[in-house]
Amino acid sequence: MEQRISMVTLGVESVAASTALYERLGWQYSQETRNEAITFFQMNGLVLALFGWTALAEDAGIKPDEPSPFRGMTVAYNTHSKEEVDSVLELAERAGARIVKSGQDVFWGGYSGYFSDPDGHLWEVTWNPLFPLGEDGSVTLPG
Amino acid sequence: MEQRISMVTLGVESVAASTALYERLGWQYSQETRNEAITFFQMNGLVLALFGWTALAEDAGIKPDEPSPFRGMTVAYNTHSKEEVDSVLELAERAGARIVKSGQDVFWGGYSGYFSDPDGHLWEVTWNPLFPLGEDGSVTLPG
Repeated sequence: MEQRISMVTLGVESVAASTALYERLGWQYSQETRNEAITFFQMNGLVLALFGWTALAEDAGIKPDEPSPFRGMTVAYNTHSKEEVDSVLELAERAGARIVKSGQDVFWGGYSGYFSDPDGHLWEVTWNPLFPLGEDGSVTLPG
Repeated sequence: MEQRISMVTLGVESVAASTALYERLGWQYSQETRNEAITFFQMNGLVLALFGWTALAEDAGIKPDEPSPFRGMTVAYNTHSKEEVDSVLELAERAGARIVKSGQDVFWGGYSGYFSDPDGHLWEVTWNPLFPLGEDGSVTLPG
């Protein structure tokens, strides 16, 4: 597993209101990926996403208040291939992490699973053909 | 405010146990910054930190379970100067964020404050003379 973070996702009550706040901080979201459900910001070699609190919990396959309180935040590790998602999840399990959601095809065309560390922090392991991954692991939003 | 993330900090029950888990994933922590209280990993232009859950809450100036439930995770935005911390916090307040902790000198030699977004996600704004900041805002651990 390479030493990198691909995405930080904040679970938010209102995607529109939160997007507006970050715009007021001077940031521009990605027009190319614009939709009502999620906002992406191109950061320094990784991506910040604003996504509905409940939707994010569902994406991780957990209820918002169990098994440990959902914190509304995930860190993502994007892989170079679909197969690599499963191998990283296996590595995580062998390493002592808990598999929260096994690797599976997801509606937006990717393949994704989640593990949690000893303190319940959620890491998404995902193959995302829509967001190009550089050789150095940097994520670049389209457009 | 530049469009970047400097650090993701996970609040953990045991810094040693969590460090060991991430080592088993194949990652190497920074030897140069090694200490019992916190572990830093050099990531892709930013830093991942593992820090005690209670210590992290205290660093943000909030109790672990108030005002909103502490999620044990912060995102950091490092500045190029001490003065810039205050100007970014002022910008955040004008933008509608809530100032959780105003800018203040901290024991490790830096200057730091926190704001929270509408959903309680904590952003640390910090000037850290120990971790060099590149012109592009990338953070590089010493050593």
